Amino acid sequence: MPGPFTLGQIASRLGGRVAGDPQTLIRQVGSLEQAGAGQITFFNSTRLQAKLGETRAAAVILAPGNERLTQLPRIVSENPYAYFARVSQLFNPVTTQAGGVHPSAVVSPTAKLGKGVSIGAGCVIGDDVSIGDDSCLYPRVVIYPKCILGRRVVVHSGVVIGADGFGIAREEGRGEGREEGRWVKIPQIGGVRIGDDVEIGANTTIDRGTVDDTVIEEGVKLDNQIQIGHNCRIGAHTALAGCVGVAGSAAIGRHCTVGGAAVILGHLSLCDGVHVSAGTVITRSIRKPGTYTGLFPFDDNASWARNTALVRHLADLAERVGALEKPKRKKRKTRNA
Amino acid sequence: MPGPFTLGQIASRLGGRVAGDPQTLIRQVGSLEQAGAGQITFFNSTRLQAKLGETRAAAVILAPGNERLTQLPRIVSENPYAYFARVSQLFNPVTTQAGGVHPSAVVSPTAKLGKGVSIGAGCVIGDDVSIGDDSCLYPRVVIYPKCILGRRVVVHSGVVIGADGFGIAREEGRGEGREEGRWVKIPQIGGVRIGDDVEIGANTTIDRGTVDDTVIEEGVKLDNQIQIGHNCRIGAHTALAGCVGVAGSAAIGRHCTVGGAAVILGHLSLCDGVHVSAGTVITRSIRKPGTYTGLFPFDDNASWARNTALVRHLADLAERVGALEKPKRKKRKTRNA
Amino acid sequence: MPGPFTLGQIASRLGGRVAGDPQTLIRQVGSLEQAGAGQITFFNSTRLQAKLGETRAAAVILAPGNERLTQLPRIVSENPYAYFARVSQLFNPVTTQAGGVHPSAVVSPTAKLGKGVSIGAGCVIGDDVSIGDDSCLYPRVVIYPKCILGRRVVVHSGVVIGADGFGIAREEGRGEGREEGRWVKIPQIGGVRIGDDVEIGANTTIDRGTVDDTVIEEGVKLDNQIQIGHNCRIGAHTALAGCVGVAGSAAIGRHCTVGGAAVILGHLSLCDGVHVSAGTVITRSIRKPGTYTGLFPFDDNASWARNTALVRHLADLAERVGALEKPKRKKRKTRNA
Repeated sequence: MPGPFTLGQIASRLGGRVAGDPQTLIRQVGSLEQAGAGQITFFNSTRLQAKLGETRAAAVILAPGNERLTQLPRIVSENPYAYFARVSQLFNPVTTQAGGVHPSAVVSPTAKLGKGVSIGAGCVIGDDVSIGDDSCLYPRVVIYPKCILGRRVVVHSGVVIGADGFGIAREEGRGEGREEGRWVKIPQIGGVRIGDDVEIGANTTIDRGTVDDTVIEEGVKLDNQIQIGHNCRIGAHTALAGCVGVAGSAAIGRHCTVGGAAVILGHLSLCDGVHVSAGTVITRSIRKPGTYTGLFPFDDNASWARNTALVRHLADLAERVGALEKPKRKKRKTRNA
Repeated sequence: MPGPFTLGQIASRLGGRVAGDPQTLIRQVGSLEQAGAGQITFFNSTRLQAKLGETRAAAVILAPGNERLTQLPRIVSENPYAYFARVSQLFNPVTTQAGGVHPSAVVSPTAKLGKGVSIGAGCVIGDDVSIGDDSCLYPRVVIYPKCILGRRVVVHSGVVIGADGFGIAREEGRGEGREEGRWVKIPQIGGVRIGDDVEIGANTTIDRGTVDDTVIEEGVKLDNQIQIGHNCRIGAHTALAGCVGVAGSAAIGRHCTVGGAAVILGHLSLCDGVHVSAGTVITRSIRKPGTYTGLFPFDDNASWARNTALVRHLADLAERVGALEKPKRKKRKTRNA
Repeated sequence: MPGPFTLGQIASRLGGRVAGDPQTLIRQVGSLEQAGAGQITFFNSTRLQAKLGETRAAAVILAPGNERLTQLPRIVSENPYAYFARVSQLFNPVTTQAGGVHPSAVVSPTAKLGKGVSIGAGCVIGDDVSIGDDSCLYPRVVIYPKCILGRRVVVHSGVVIGADGFGIAREEGRGEGREEGRWVKIPQIGGVRIGDDVEIGANTTIDRGTVDDTVIEEGVKLDNQIQIGHNCRIGAHTALAGCVGVAGSAAIGRHCTVGGAAVILGHLSLCDGVHVSAGTVITRSIRKPGTYTGLFPFDDNASWARNTALVRHLADLAERVGALEKPKRKKRKTRNA
């Protein structure tokens, strides 16, 4: 493990300004609650001020505006969270598993693996798959044939890339033994292309395209249990939190974020810089950057039941308000007459 | 790869009417955006009319009402999407992986595999499992013991069929060392039965029944990341989109569709021909065919916050409207008196 | 298979009171709908009274208040569901798969396995993992390095424990080749600790902690397809239904239940004894035990569309009501003047 480093050494490597003793020796990062001697933590939410007061950390990373909230040795940075990430990388170099192909993995002889690629136990890599240099597949990843992964792509266990998209057409039963309401499968002949520096969380699935490819651009970060439908395009440096579902043929722009369990319906476009709140279902395209939310507020069950019953009668309520307004308007008209 | 075929040859095989040159030669299908020479695409949404104008496809499949929207050679069909599926199957015969059992698969000696069954790398097939002719399990599927799959069933990677349902009963702590609020497991002794021509998407899970079987009837199509609880019954030719959750003992009828990330609560029945919109939570049984929706509309975050705060005070608002209405009613009564 | 037992023998083992012939011989449990000769079922919902009348079961377990609803031999218990669980365990001892490590599993030489541990086909157990006595991992489970599982833990197929949490910080592009809006990975150096008697459903994922551990306390029951983010703590004897998402650093108390597909946002605390309804998104901490719900009511699509359009104009509606109230108030004031 690298280090230790003094606060002064850290700041000279990563920037930021030291307040307090620059000789403070740091050996590891820690959380505000559990950091101890030799550990540096970060503070970026005034909601946690009480915890800052109680922390036993040796030093704290915080923003200029919060500099006076503690007497501990500290590093002042405009972006304490990103700074913490950099410090943690200093002490915990981001390594993945050992390189090479685990003997239990099943790799097609026609797959092309770049230099330094690591393929974990139980992975299955299909025909004509291409994986760029220094990418890492943790155990039990499946890549269907003809998918392309860039360089430094990290794929966690249980991920499935390139399974068939949900392409089915309902066929009515006219003639020649065709029965009513059967589903006809649309062959999924596209692939999946994944850019450099993408990370994909455990048990996430990315379907292959119907005809064209499904595309995940460079720098995209996908959390666990996400479903990306066929033909989608996720723009560069966009991040999707856990359990998000993106339906087929949706296009999400660059530098977007999508909160946990949000859903983007099919065939929609979200422009660059859109932020979708957790639990929100996006039902139409968004052409203006900003934050979008659609979340039914929770309440204690009794209050919820009382209010929610009225949601189903909102149209009635609006009509009643309209009726109350009418006589007034009428009266006014009469007066003006 | 089969083909090429002329438009005339396609229409003579699949029906439909050719408009424009029937000698137009087609080698493959393509998307409206990216199709090029020798490729046929389809058009079924007037929202995409601009793209139809720009397409470089050699021919288009479209509905009678849209026939005049392009001068390209075309096939006119009542159901362009299903027609496209059939054409694509013509050029891309639906094959799955090679037959036989991959040497890395672990298949119980008591499992029965039909003719032409394909078991991918890393699959695990439990005792007394039965799999019908021509079914295909992609890599890394797990089938727990005693589950039955029909013919031509396609199961994508990461699927788990027959894991224990979530059967737990809370026990209070009266006497003999029983502690307050412990969960007692209900043995899950039922199985899973899956009909012919079912397709199951990547990382979907279908639990075994508590006592009776969980049943997926013939022709059902399940997308990725779906959860089917114990004792459920999904009626024939019903399709569930990605991330849908069906809680235990729910019964969904035949020819239903359930949109992405929708949830069907436990012990409910949905009759045949019910269509549940994406993101909707179904909380009571449905006895009438039709489309059902329950989705909080999204908005820019500020508008959402303003409106949603009022949802939690709807009962108050309704009372205020009632209060406004009362004097009027009173006055009327007085007048009538 | 154990048994048969008479009703009298069952009651002398498990408590409860027999009504009707105590010599009734029971060989197995069954469902209300499908139980037949020699089978005992349970009844705990008056909604199912018609089915109780038609059941062909040999005996029924029910609550004192429902004792008169059938003439069948019966066992009367305050908690028929838990009693049924105990009876089913009598006939179907909860066994898991055979002990030992399947030859296709990949277990690190530094992993410690307790006595009686069962590791299914295709599992991958990382370095320094510790698994307590009598735990069972079904096929195709992945445990990343340094995670700790207690005793009698049951893990179903497809589960991934200890993958990296979604720890990324957005970095702006000031200086030295740093580009705008890139994500910096925060090394995930914590682990996962799972207590005794925890059961984890198929394809569920539990991320390792950022710095401290992610903790699942004893007796917790997790259904399928659940996502537990990094740094979470799930209190003892809490149960989460399928498809639930718990975002990073959330803490759920003891003896809680979370309904299917509910979402708990990050950094929140739920006290002991909180019950979250299915489909609900919890957006702030809860400090009072009780049931909490936030679910948009579904309706036929036309009614939904009419009412939901108004949700987006609730603030306007409230203003209109306020305007209607004002003159009245004014008038009253005038009168009082």
